[in-house]
Amino acid sequence: MTEARHATEARRPAGTLERHGHIGTQREQGPKKPGALSDGQGPAGPDGHEATVLLRESRASVDPELRSAIASLPASMRRIALYHFGWQHADGTPAGGNAGKAIRPALVLTSAAALGGPGARTAAARAAAAVELVHNFTLLHDDVMDRDTTRRHRPTAWTVFGDADAILAGDALQALALRLLAADPHPASPAAAARLADCVMELCEGQHADTAMERRAPGEVTLDETLAMAEAKTGALLGCACALGALYAGAAAEDVEALDAFGREAGLAFQLIDDVIGIWGDPRRTGKPAGADLAARKKSLPVVAALTSGTPAAAELAELYAAPYEEGEEDLERTALAVERAGGRDWAQVQAADRMARAVQELARAVRDPEAAGGLLALAEFVTRRSA
Amino acid sequence: MTEARHATEARRPAGTLERHGHIGTQREQGPKKPGALSDGQGPAGPDGHEATVLLRESRASVDPELRSAIASLPASMRRIALYHFGWQHADGTPAGGNAGKAIRPALVLTSAAALGGPGARTAAARAAAAVELVHNFTLLHDDVMDRDTTRRHRPTAWTVFGDADAILAGDALQALALRLLAADPHPASPAAAARLADCVMELCEGQHADTAMERRAPGEVTLDETLAMAEAKTGALLGCACALGALYAGAAAEDVEALDAFGREAGLAFQLIDDVIGIWGDPRRTGKPAGADLAARKKSLPVVAALTSGTPAAAELAELYAAPYEEGEEDLERTALAVERAGGRDWAQVQAADRMARAVQELARAVRDPEAAGGLLALAEFVTRRSA
Repeated sequence: MTEARHATEARRPAGTLERHGHIGTQREQGPKKPGALSDGQGPAGPDGHEATVLLRESRASVDPELRSAIASLPASMRRIALYHFGWQHADGTPAGGNAGKAIRPALVLTSAAALGGPGARTAAARAAAAVELVHNFTLLHDDVMDRDTTRRHRPTAWTVFGDADAILAGDALQALALRLLAADPHPASPAAAARLADCVMELCEGQHADTAMERRAPGEVTLDETLAMAEAKTGALLGCACALGALYAGAAAEDVEALDAFGREAGLAFQLIDDVIGIWGDPRRTGKPAGADLAARKKSLPVVAALTSGTPAAAELAELYAAPYEEGEEDLERTALAVERAGGRDWAQVQAADRMARAVQELARAVRDPEAAGGLLALAEFVTRRSA
Repeated sequence: MTEARHATEARRPAGTLERHGHIGTQREQGPKKPGALSDGQGPAGPDGHEATVLLRESRASVDPELRSAIASLPASMRRIALYHFGWQHADGTPAGGNAGKAIRPALVLTSAAALGGPGARTAAARAAAAVELVHNFTLLHDDVMDRDTTRRHRPTAWTVFGDADAILAGDALQALALRLLAADPHPASPAAAARLADCVMELCEGQHADTAMERRAPGEVTLDETLAMAEAKTGALLGCACALGALYAGAAAEDVEALDAFGREAGLAFQLIDDVIGIWGDPRRTGKPAGADLAARKKSLPVVAALTSGTPAAAELAELYAAPYEEGEEDLERTALAVERAGGRDWAQVQAADRMARAVQELARAVRDPEAAGGLLALAEFVTRRSA
């Protein structure tokens, strides 16, 4: 999921109010060293090994479905999609490709395998591709709305093809996603399609809430609504991915819901950690300048927690956030310190741990065999492991 | 279909290059007298009576489905959708409502009835609502891309809620459309969903082609590609509406295809007539100034036919089109005359008649009983009957 950390944030003019995240995703990292988290490989250390293998295997299963689906698009839409996925350059020549780590398809396949074994995993490949198409449709639209110019280290589609074509390509990818499921003869496909469509509506609501919140004064935003927004924007599609895998495994309704909750909680844990990194992350690890979120005056989760803490530091933070960022280290250091002294950092880390605990609990409800649950646990830990 | 004639065209600055039409629709008419074609009533004359009754009856069947579907949207998206459909004012208070004539749902229901009787018509209500949702999703996005400020005599959604929310509401309506079909237990629903999703991709392609063509020099646009664009943009969704009705009637594959072709041909006939009206229409009937399409230098079908005619008038027209519109009657009169002398008007009228003949032929292939085919014929004649 780290593929979405925004390289562009750092380039924004000082004081630009910026949205918390993006439809169903997180922010994109800037250029970074090979082997770092967002290059599709992940660390090969012992703690990330299982997740890395799962991600690689799920890419191998989903890419053929994804490529054949995209090949079926009308020519003009296909061209934009192939560019967006990193499989073609803007001029239509083949590109090496950096389509992201595809954590969502991996959640679909690993959930299917956890509840239904290898057969269910194989059967769910099309659903996994559908989830990835929905994710990418939201990225295309999101970049237009945000005027973000970089995604996965390349110029965003709208900067290359224009707004209209980027919007149209997003529309086409949503249609393609739901078409994949409509044409899938698997008995779970209608329920999966309904669930994925519901998720799209929730993503839209989350994106709307995010935009609306960023326009409001810092003092007018509550922590509950910030958490609800993050759940709709980030948690919903991760939950949906897990739920689709469960549906394709023929799981009982309560297990489908438990896996959905697992994905949502893990998604929220990820978002909390991502927000902490957005403030205190080591630029050498995150690939973006320290404090970029603060410079953009983003109402990220630790910031809202700090603002609503009722502490003296909260008042200081509100004052800092009321004025645009002043170029230089001092503003950022003061702001980060105010968030920390108001308890925002601790709160976010405790919350993230709490969400992960809830995720594990939900997972245990749905997948009773710890060995079968291992893959999903590894993926959840993988996406939330980066320490600030 | 005439609900979509753009009132805004007339307000565009002189010389603004303007797109040919809109995703899957036609241009909106300006303010007009009650009882005129676009107010949802239609003329009560004998030739339009059957169509008027069909449209009214289909509104009555589809509106409850549509309203209940929209009620299920998340609050923020629901608000924008209710505004767009004319059921709420921007402040959320109830509005009288002008959601258009809903010709597409009428085509779904009338096709179902023609091939499967009243039972099929009843069963297809959800599919009819899905088609109308797709149509409206494209209108929302289209207005953003075109910067159109008026739709159905009201400010467009993006002017009221902003670009981001209008894009998100369009995304949500597409999801809602495909969700309706995914949740529909009717055996035809998966095939209908796949077909509707395919149609969305074709609408995107048509919209892309239209935008791209309007950016090119007049001499670089061929008649074949203009016809192909109009088919993708206008014909595809009318054809899809008819095909969905046939699917819900349990029709054979060749009858589904014949009804799709019927809708496409009727859609093209409509577009041809609409383009003729865009040049020579009586402002008292069309509600917009004569020659607005020419003032906008639109590459409409009669214009492209004229430009590619190889006549001396074609050269004159190309010269006029190379320069921005000069305020005043004279430019428009000269341009209209050049299109006419180059044969553009005659060609469009002959083509429209030819397309209608093909539509009738396709209809007869699928619906052998002339009485059963009467409703569809009446709808096709209704939408293409306005004479220039």
